[in-house]
Order: sequence, then structure tokens, then C-alpha cells
Amino acid sequence: MRWSKYYLPTFKETPSDAEIPSHKLMLRAGLIKQLTAGVYSFLPAGFRVLKNVEKIVREEMDRAGCQEVMMPILHPGELYEETGRLENFGPLLFKLKDRRDRFFALGPTHEEVVTDIGRANLKSYRQLPQCLYQIQVKFRDEFRPRFGLIRAREFIMKDAYSFHANQESMDETYERMGEAYTRILERCGLDSLRVEAESGAIGGDVNHEFIVLAEEGESAIFRCPCGYAANDERAESLGAKLGELEPVSDKPEKVDTPAKTTIDDVTGFLGVGASRLVKTLLYKSQDRVVAALVPGERQLNEAKLAQALGDPFAELLGDDEIERVTGARVGYAGPVGLPKDVRVIADPLLKDYDGMIVGANATDAHLRGVKMGRDFEPDEIAPLSEVLAGDTCKACGKGKLYIQRGVELGHIFKLDTKYSASMNATYLDSKGVEHAFIMGCYGFGVSRAVAAAIEQHHDDKGIVWPKSLTPFHVIVLPINTAGFSAVEPAEKLHEDLSAAGFDVLLDDRDLRPGPKFMDSELLGVPLRITLGERNLKDGNAEVYYRAEDRKDLIPLDSVLDLVTSFYQD
Amino acid sequence: MRWSKYYLPTFKETPSDAEIPSHKLMLRAGLIKQLTAGVYSFLPAGFRVLKNVEKIVREEMDRAGCQEVMMPILHPGELYEETGRLENFGPLLFKLKDRRDRFFALGPTHEEVVTDIGRANLKSYRQLPQCLYQIQVKFRDEFRPRFGLIRAREFIMKDAYSFHANQESMDETYERMGEAYTRILERCGLDSLRVEAESGAIGGDVNHEFIVLAEEGESAIFRCPCGYAANDERAESLGAKLGELEPVSDKPEKVDTPAKTTIDDVTGFLGVGASRLVKTLLYKSQDRVVAALVPGERQLNEAKLAQALGDPFAELLGDDEIERVTGARVGYAGPVGLPKDVRVIADPLLKDYDGMIVGANATDAHLRGVKMGRDFEPDEIAPLSEVLAGDTCKACGKGKLYIQRGVELGHIFKLDTKYSASMNATYLDSKGVEHAFIMGCYGFGVSRAVAAAIEQHHDDKGIVWPKSLTPFHVIVLPINTAGFSAVEPAEKLHEDLSAAGFDVLLDDRDLRPGPKFMDSELLGVPLRITLGERNLKDGNAEVYYRAEDRKDLIPLDSVLDLVTSFYQD
Repeated sequence: MRWSKYYLPTFKETPSDAEIPSHKLMLRAGLIKQLTAGVYSFLPAGFRVLKNVEKIVREEMDRAGCQEVMMPILHPGELYEETGRLENFGPLLFKLKDRRDRFFALGPTHEEVVTDIGRANLKSYRQLPQCLYQIQVKFRDEFRPRFGLIRAREFIMKDAYSFHANQESMDETYERMGEAYTRILERCGLDSLRVEAESGAIGGDVNHEFIVLAEEGESAIFRCPCGYAANDERAESLGAKLGELEPVSDKPEKVDTPAKTTIDDVTGFLGVGASRLVKTLLYKSQDRVVAALVPGERQLNEAKLAQALGDPFAELLGDDEIERVTGARVGYAGPVGLPKDVRVIADPLLKDYDGMIVGANATDAHLRGVKMGRDFEPDEIAPLSEVLAGDTCKACGKGKLYIQRGVELGHIFKLDTKYSASMNATYLDSKGVEHAFIMGCYGFGVSRAVAAAIEQHHDDKGIVWPKSLTPFHVIVLPINTAGFSAVEPAEKLHEDLSAAGFDVLLDDRDLRPGPKFMDSELLGVPLRITLGERNLKDGNAEVYYRAEDRKDLIPLDSVLDLVTSFYQD
Repeated sequence: MRWSKYYLPTFKETPSDAEIPSHKLMLRAGLIKQLTAGVYSFLPAGFRVLKNVEKIVREEMDRAGCQEVMMPILHPGELYEETGRLENFGPLLFKLKDRRDRFFALGPTHEEVVTDIGRANLKSYRQLPQCLYQIQVKFRDEFRPRFGLIRAREFIMKDAYSFHANQESMDETYERMGEAYTRILERCGLDSLRVEAESGAIGGDVNHEFIVLAEEGESAIFRCPCGYAANDERAESLGAKLGELEPVSDKPEKVDTPAKTTIDDVTGFLGVGASRLVKTLLYKSQDRVVAALVPGERQLNEAKLAQALGDPFAELLGDDEIERVTGARVGYAGPVGLPKDVRVIADPLLKDYDGMIVGANATDAHLRGVKMGRDFEPDEIAPLSEVLAGDTCKACGKGKLYIQRGVELGHIFKLDTKYSASMNATYLDSKGVEHAFIMGCYGFGVSRAVAAAIEQHHDDKGIVWPKSLTPFHVIVLPINTAGFSAVEPAEKLHEDLSAAGFDVLLDDRDLRPGPKFMDSELLGVPLRITLGERNLKDGNAEVYYRAEDRKDLIPLDSVLDLVTSFYQD
């Protein structure tokens, strides 16, 4: 490929709206071009990387025994009525009507469509298990599309769905898919982690994410040396060593706290540590008020609340509503004496509290020495609060949790019969008895993988592609000087390397050497062969190893051998 | 692959709404499944065929020097405002709004998006020519989706777009793409034809279609032994030997034709042949009335009218409007004495007419002996009438045209500066002068190709796949009888053939031989190896050649050689 006739524009300036390395570098290296917010074209070099990821994903899915299909993007609205997911997805769903006024969604994921395929022709346990997958464009109308391909509105996913007659078969496929994901990430040259996660709008009880570690990744992972790993929406801990707790009084003692509405206000005013306080946050969920209690030192994690409520759309009450429910101004809510129809959920860390200081449900007052189980009874104990670095691991009971950041690339789920039951998708067992399929689903962000690879592999100069993903194996860079042209040996090298099956980019642009070097480093191709007058006279070429940022001189006639052995590793 | 665990349902019954062989057979052979009108899932075997087509298309596009990209499906409305194509596409365009009420179309084709890519970074003539292509899902909200994949609302196209600095470069790429299309069709095993065609909503002056010949294809092609070939929307002829023409009178003679409003009525009443009459059809186009004149013996072709008017949405006038314009009841319109603002367009065949009988623009009356150029002057001469089999070829002036039917798979266009001019997409020439790009575009129906292959290759039993498209190379079919199992040799053959790189379908289903034979013939795999007790005892296997519908006995240990040499051809 000749750069002069290849659509590969490069830019020195970092685009102003790009916040993270992959977004900046993909734009600067001409891999993608934005069409509108969250919607990108893959330009030729970017598409080559995408194809490399697709190939690895496809090979591993085939090896895991999955069958490739292609399901439609236009989903008839009636399908979503069967499962009730219109609500779950809410405004994330792109919706449209056709010329006959029929309602469609643009597929955000394909559980409904694949369950419809399963119920149509999988009738007997003899046909099970089966696993169908596709590599297909998906759509989500993100509230705030950002980070380039990391949170786009139109993106490419591999999604697989399995049908089973029993739990053992489900578990076996789940493990096999997990292993396939680990192999995919290894083959892509990515350092990754399998963690416990939340299921969100997909549903089901068991699920794991595959995270590519990267400093500026949007996912926070809590890890323990014992091996435990979970994302911040799922992680639980035994908390940290608590500060001094509030002693229990004989009965709650009402104290004046005039105009003290925050944790800092109250602790400062009363001269106590935050570990004595418990926060009471009031939410509205499906027309019911919920009081969520978390330690005064920790934030509430809304994903955990959504999971506890089974409702992703719970919202904080407005000030007026808080006054109506508690009879007090904002800042004085507490669990004692709330109206009976308020559902009280307490974080499990609160079980270790003797007493607590809580809002008194009266303006300018708090209660001290409150005891859970005596002064109020929570309707439910469920994880609500954030985990913090340094917390004790719940899995091993002794390790200290630490944080790593990363990009979620894969997410696998055991769906049980969530979709099959609501869509009446059944098979007959060996006795002729009808059952809903047990199902699994397995997502992998194909376009996102391209960005994640850059998040993990870049430096100040640009991208540093893993060998398996690079758009080109080698850049051949001739330097023409006054009275000397390197064009002929460059053409020959281009030809020889191409003939040996390598993807070669010949930088034949009419530019000075400096910008050519910078562009090749920005683009991140693992090997660059520079042909200049002085070295050529000695029969040599300069090889530049992008990952090591290192140059070396080698005989021109050994370049093919070097490239071959480099990619054989 | 084991059929028992492969998603490949077959059906004996022909689905009631399927009209043509490919639609019937794709549903019956489990290649596709309808999700809703005009929207299909590709099931695993169908997807394999689709991938085979894609691979051939991709290889030939790469060989032709095109660069693969992937452009978005969500097209922002503003882009269509730049080119005015919202109107051209009309209700064919699927439209939606995002959560911020911004308007989008689902891409029906990508001229706007690719021109936007071109203008962003192709700045100099030195970078030209370039050609970008993608294989991507497209959307058209067809008024009447039908024929399965032939006229679907969601379908897969390869679309390529080229940018040029001059006409020679445009012409060269156009020819190279035409050759690539011919090679693609050959490699797909399809008998095809390149024909002159109309450009429709894409625009531009020069364009050709690539038609796969098939008896029930929706396109009608007119061919001459001289080599001329054009579709019915484009074909022109010198007409046929005319019957007796109306002599010219000194001046038009008004004759009573009470309640004679059709050609048959008038010719019967006056005792003359239809060749004496000229039809006058009144249309409304962009708020102007158009009178279209065609020979009495021929139908008007609306695609030709659309081309003549540059307006795809011209509509026949209603009865009331006809009366208002002509002053007469419907059936008596004619070109003489129409209001001055009516635009009169005459078919070129009418130039050979001496006189004509036409409506008198008076109820119950016609004019005889009318002469064009004396009694009325057309504003324009343009092809409007249908071509008929037996017409004299316009290209060679002597051959007789004949009809063939087929399926349009490819359509290539010289767009000139239609998009680049309206979108201000320019480059600088060697003197620094700015010009709009000269552009070409090149479409190929990838999912439609699967259907077209079946239209051309099927028989009473089912599909007969060309070798390059077949979902599997071989079916291995063991016959188990009482006290005898062919499972072991079948498993071994499955393993040996797979190890040699062939895609093998092992029919391990618990079915009687009859249905297995019928299914394999329905599915159309070129080779079937049957393993039964009697033949195996003699060390033999039965090979069935699907295309020839022929069976043969061969030694079991020569099967691999036979399959290998069959696919080496």
C-alpha cells in the first residue's frame, strides 16, 4: 500500500473534545472519523484493526462450537412487549416507525430476536445445547456519548446466545465461553481480568465482565491478593476498621442540630467522627418511597441500589417530596418514625454498628444512640454503599482490597429462563414434558476492543499496536535527499515483503523525514524500515522497533528474515 | 458439523407468501427466517453462503485497488439537506429522532457520508484517485417488501465510491470496477449480463447494471444479437415495422367518437389499426402538467418518464384535473389545443408518423390526420414508450430485440460532480485551482446475490449451489439399519474430510433415509456421500452429484481424493 494514495490522514493537534488517549490517538492517526456525536466511520487503517479483532473473535467462537448467524437491526416493537424490555432500556433505545406506522427499535442487543429463533425450531432436548452468535452493529442512544469508541451510539458487538436443557450444560458452556474470552484477549495482546459484575438491563443472576486494564479506563475494579475481583457496581467488602462508633443509649436521644444538614456539619457540631453517623437517602422507585441507609463515611452506589430494587430508574426524591415524607427540611431524614409505607433498606456494614446518629425527621434535629432492630426495623439488608480501597475482602476475610481501572470488553451472563419463560420458548425433555430453555448470553465489544487496545498500549509518541492487531506489519520509509533517491530499493522491499504475505505501508509521500517518522510512530506499526543514502551505501537499513522505541542497523538483504521471525514469535 | 446440533431446520411445505423459487427455497432449507415484513435473520447455513459471497466481493474489490472502510448506519439529517436527497428518496427512507430530537436517516446508500469523508482529507490531485468501499447493512422502507431477499427492507450491500481529478481517471476506474463485477459474478458461478440502465435516486448520466439471468427475475432485459443489452427502463429501439399509418389531412378533421375512450374502442369504432392512434397521458410533475405522447400500440414506461422529467414522483392527473385541463371527459385528451403551460413530450417513435389520430380535447371527439410539427409542437422529444420483443435494435439498426429476465445484482454509476458540487467537496489541481471531485459509485447486492444464485440454480428438488457458494462442501449421510450402524465409518469420514479443510455436514439425525435424502437435495450441497450396509460391506460408498442429479459407487477409501479433485476444478 502506498501512503500517497491511501486514505490515512494524520493530525498533530489533539481534537479538543477527546478526553482519553484512545479517542485522541484514533482521531490523530486517521483510524476513525466522527460523523456526529457518538457515531464514527472506520477509515481504512482503523478498519484493518477492526477486522483483525473480528477474525480472532470469530475463530474463538467457532472453536467454542458456536454457529455464526446475522440477525436484523430493525426489531419489531411487539417483541419487546413480550419481555417488557422497552421499560428496562428506556431512552437508550432508538425508536422509529415505518411507512405503515409500525413501531421498531434499533437492536441494542438481541435476546428477544434470538429467543424467537430458538422457540421456532428447537423443539427437543436432543437438539440442545446450541449456541448462536453474530458480529453486528448495535445501537444505544447514550445520554452522553463520549470517549470515542468506548461509549458510542453505534458500535460493533459480538453477541452470542446459548440454549440449554439443564443447568450442567449451561454451566459447561458458560465456562467454555469464559475460556474463549480469555483466549481472545490473550490473542489480541491485551492484559485483562475476569471480574464479578452487575447484569443491568440484560438480567440474570450470574455474570462476569472481562476488563482490559488501562489507567484511564472508565471501570473501577476492586481486587484482593486472594484472587477476588469485582467491578465497583458489584464489589462487596467487610468494610474497613471503623472509627469510634456511637454508643447505644437506653432510648434515642433527640439533639438540636440547627442548620446542620451535611455529614461534615453534624460531625463538626457534635464533635464526633463520621463513623458515628448513618446517612438516610430517600428515593422514589415505581411509585414507592425507599429509604436507603449507608455508613456516614461512604457514598451510596446507585447501581447497587438499582440491583436491590430491581429498578434501574429509581430517582432521588425532590426537596418538596422529602419534606412531605419526613415532615422536616432536607438534611434531617432518618429511619426512625418514617411513614409505614416507606421501604427501608440498610447496607450490611450497618449490622456492625452499635448505635448510630441519624436525622430525626424533624427540622434542626438528629437522634443519637439509635439502635437498628430496636428503634427501627429495616425491610431489607442489601449492599448499597461504595467499596473503598483498603477495605477487607469479603471473599477471604483478611486481604485488603485495591483498585485497578480498565475498560469492559466482555460481559457474560447466565440468564436462566428470564427470556424463554416470558416469550414461551420451550422444548420437550426425554419424557415429553415441556420446559422453558435455560439460556446464556455473551457479549464482546469488537469496536471497543480497538480503543481498549490503545488505552493499554500507547506512549507519548502515539499508538503501540500489539502484533496481532496492527493495521500493517511494516512501514517502509525511504528518505530522498538532494541527488539521491531511495525510491527504487524501497519499491523492491515493498514488493518482496508483500510477496511474502506481509501487509506493508510504503511511505512514498513527498514529505521531509521528520514528519514521516512522527506519523509512523503515531500510527504505531510494530516495525519500521528506514532506507537512507548513508546506510544503503553500506548495504544496510535501519529497523525501528516501536514497542521498545529502539533503532538498529541491519543488512538490507536480511530485512525479510527479520520481519518473518519478528511475526513468528 | 453435526446436523443434530446444528440450527438447520427444513420444511416440506412451501410458505404461502413466498412467490419465487429463491424465497421459497431459502425458507424451506432453513437459510433465513423472517422477523417481520422484508426483514430476515440469516441462519447458520445461510450465513455461510453470505460469507462466501462477501469473501469473493472483498477479494475482487481489494484487487481493484479499493480500500475497505465501515461507514455508519445513522446518517444525520443535515447531510441530506446538503444534497436534497430527502426528496429523491421520499418514503423509502427510514427516519428517526434521537433523545435530543435530532433527525436521522438509516443509510439507504452512502454518497453523502463518503463525500463528507472525501472533502475532509483529500485536498490535492496528488492523492487521487482513491476508491473506498464497505460491506454494510442498508435500509429502504419498500412500499411492498416481497420476494424474500430480492426486495427486503434491511439488506447487505457492497458499496464503493471513487474520487477523481479528471475524466480519464474516472473512466479507467469505471472500467476496472466493471471488470471486477464480471469476475465476482463468474467466481460466484453466475451467468450474468452487463446492461445499460437508469440511475434512479443515485443520479449521474452513465450507468450499467449487472444482471444474473433467471426465469423469474424481476428485471426485464432487451438484448440484440449485436451485443446491445439494456433493462426495460433504459432500452430504446427503432420500433417495429408499423402497421398502416394515418394519412395526413390538409388540416385535422374532427370526428365523433361517442363514449369511445380506449384505444380498442376507438380503433374498433373507426375501423382502423392501433398504429394510427397516439396516446396522450397527462401527468403532474412539480406543479406543472405534462402531456406524454406514445404510440397507440405501446405502454408508457414511467421510469423513462421520470428520467425525461428529472422527477421520480410524477403522478397521473386525476379525472377532475384532466377535465379542467382538457375541457373534456377522460379519454379524449390530445396534443392539439392544450393550454400553453402544459409541457408536451413526445416519444421519438412518433417522428416516423405521417398523421395520427388523437383525442380532440372535446368530449366524444377525436382528431384525424393530425401532423406533429404542423398542428402541435412538442416541447421535447424523449424516450417514453416501452420496448417490445421484436423491435429493431437502435444500436445496430437491423437486429431484432429479444427479452431475457434476471435479477439485478450490481449497478455502477458515473456521478460526475453531482454530490461533490452540492457538498462543496473539492481538491486543488497542479496549478492550485480548486475543482469539485469527479466521482463514481458502485453497488453490489451481497444478500441479494444469495437469492439470485438460487434463482439461477435450482430444480424441483431444491437448491443446486455453485461450488464457490455452497454452505458445505460435502454431506456425509450414514444409514443405520436393524443390527447395523454406519456411525463409525461416517464419523471417520467426517473427521478425515474436515482435517483436509473441507466443510462437512454429518447428517447424524435420528431420521429414516428418505427424509435425509430429500433434505440434502433441498439444501443443495454439491456432493453427498451415503454410507449404507450393503455398499460398506463391499468397501464402497455412494456419491451423489447434486448438479447432475446422478449417483455413483466409489471405493470408500477414495472419497477424499474424489472430493479434493471435485473442488480443484
